[in-house]
Amino acid sequence: MAVYTDVSDADLSAFLGRYDVGSLLSCKGIAEGVENSNYFVHTEGGNFILTLYEKRVAVADLPFFIELMDHLATRGLNCPRPVRDREGQALGTLVGRPAAMVTFLDGVWIKQPGVDHCGALGGALAQLHLAGADFGMRRPNSLSVESWPGLFAAAGPRADGVAPGLSALVVEELAWLAERWPRGLPQGVIHADLFPDNVFFLGERLSGLIDFYFACTDALAYDLAVCLNAWCFAPDGGFDPARGRAMLDGYRAMRPLAPEEVRALPVLARGAALRFMLTRLVDWLNVPPGALVKPKDPLEYLAKLRFHRTVSSAAAYGLS
Amino acid sequence: MAVYTDVSDADLSAFLGRYDVGSLLSCKGIAEGVENSNYFVHTEGGNFILTLYEKRVAVADLPFFIELMDHLATRGLNCPRPVRDREGQALGTLVGRPAAMVTFLDGVWIKQPGVDHCGALGGALAQLHLAGADFGMRRPNSLSVESWPGLFAAAGPRADGVAPGLSALVVEELAWLAERWPRGLPQGVIHADLFPDNVFFLGERLSGLIDFYFACTDALAYDLAVCLNAWCFAPDGGFDPARGRAMLDGYRAMRPLAPEEVRALPVLARGAALRFMLTRLVDWLNVPPGALVKPKDPLEYLAKLRFHRTVSSAAAYGLS
Repeated sequence: MAVYTDVSDADLSAFLGRYDVGSLLSCKGIAEGVENSNYFVHTEGGNFILTLYEKRVAVADLPFFIELMDHLATRGLNCPRPVRDREGQALGTLVGRPAAMVTFLDGVWIKQPGVDHCGALGGALAQLHLAGADFGMRRPNSLSVESWPGLFAAAGPRADGVAPGLSALVVEELAWLAERWPRGLPQGVIHADLFPDNVFFLGERLSGLIDFYFACTDALAYDLAVCLNAWCFAPDGGFDPARGRAMLDGYRAMRPLAPEEVRALPVLARGAALRFMLTRLVDWLNVPPGALVKPKDPLEYLAKLRFHRTVSSAAAYGLS
Repeated sequence: MAVYTDVSDADLSAFLGRYDVGSLLSCKGIAEGVENSNYFVHTEGGNFILTLYEKRVAVADLPFFIELMDHLATRGLNCPRPVRDREGQALGTLVGRPAAMVTFLDGVWIKQPGVDHCGALGGALAQLHLAGADFGMRRPNSLSVESWPGLFAAAGPRADGVAPGLSALVVEELAWLAERWPRGLPQGVIHADLFPDNVFFLGERLSGLIDFYFACTDALAYDLAVCLNAWCFAPDGGFDPARGRAMLDGYRAMRPLAPEEVRALPVLARGAALRFMLTRLVDWLNVPPGALVKPKDPLEYLAKLRFHRTVSSAAAYGLS
């Protein structure tokens, strides 16, 4: 949950006045999302999400995210579409922060995804990768393998206080992954953070993808590795091959995986687990006093990492 | 901001299935309100607020609040109307907590109310008092003068750490108010917490009142005293008689004040300031670790209390 910035009525009215969306009818802070402040905005013109960009999002990256959502929506992907003001600008300023308004997507996110949800997610992820194929902008993945040693350094000597032996394990992983990280896999636009809370369903139908603020240019199969981590572990902590198979089959029905992508999956999944463990660890150790955001538990991803260390081929993820 | 309870998809669907509101289209936690968990729920049948009652609200009081909103809405007051399920029940259970769904009110709350907003508020408050006149249920004000010594005891010896000399001042106030608290004023349903964030406007028009979870049976003029505190102080901390006059005139245009109500206003306003200072003080001193709610500053109400100590007649509030 995150609403960091208090927006005054005058500021909001001035901001909305630049758009053809009619008068403001309602504006409520949304208790979701961690990186930015989000508001549900209802105007005579419809329902929108207003986002104020707060911290991790670099201002220079915003045009990439905004244009990407526009591109994907135009290609038929169900994702928020940035609203442009009368001068054609989708990016504005509100309370001194960069701000943008996007269309509101109906749907609810699934807290305990089942096999069918994972199948639908696989298909939507492939659709995203295909729709992004002709997107003209590039953004390097700033949270890929090169960044992990720095993240670990930011966690510092307190890591072992979170879990005994954690530092030694991470040091070992960093070396192992640096040596084996796959290069030359098919690249393109990836979402890079497609957790269940970023995927909406209406009934059993996947109705949309949101939150493109980690999107970047990287190996497409890495996106799948992130999703295997985020969607396919059971509540008891064990990996569920039935969900993995459904996701991989759903993906491959839309976009076949190259043999080198299949071979790379275990390393990519192991790296993805380390990446989320490290960012959660840094957040966990650096909760500011008075913080309104509850940090996520890094140990969940430590357990996932330990699982991937036992995996030798994509068959363990259910690949048939 | 407050969303305390995580609602699973299955629980939410089962809950909504009892109502004739169609399928769920969207559900988002709202980062407003302190006492309960609130969700914006969009279904095929419309927009609703779903509330899970969490802490300060006693279960036994919920029928009073629910029936009151129903009564006031039926009398034409713009306030949330509880939605009844197919069996006619407005109060249900969700994740083991009492829960109710009410209609969604458009409007935004005014962060810096002006004279005209205060005038409109006065009129709406009188309308609430008139609409509540024939409401059949009663609920004593559990946060009135008798409760204040107990609240102060809950703050305990740490009060002086918040402001030097605070304890001595409160002890003096408690004795002064216990002796002079007016009895026998016209009674009825009062809102008791009609702060700006509970009053919606569309443009300059007051469009609705929300959050009736402190409503009770008490002196009608006490409600006015709460609003004088909440609406009529300028950002610099000084009382603004122009706003006070607008509020009192707006109120009296709908419901004339009896002479004893006018005479009682300074004592009531002083008591109201102490009441909010004390509840804020207790919250301030008892923030649980990991709390997601930022407590409100008790010192704001200490300053208001000091102002009321200088007031000898309602003329100081702008009464003409």
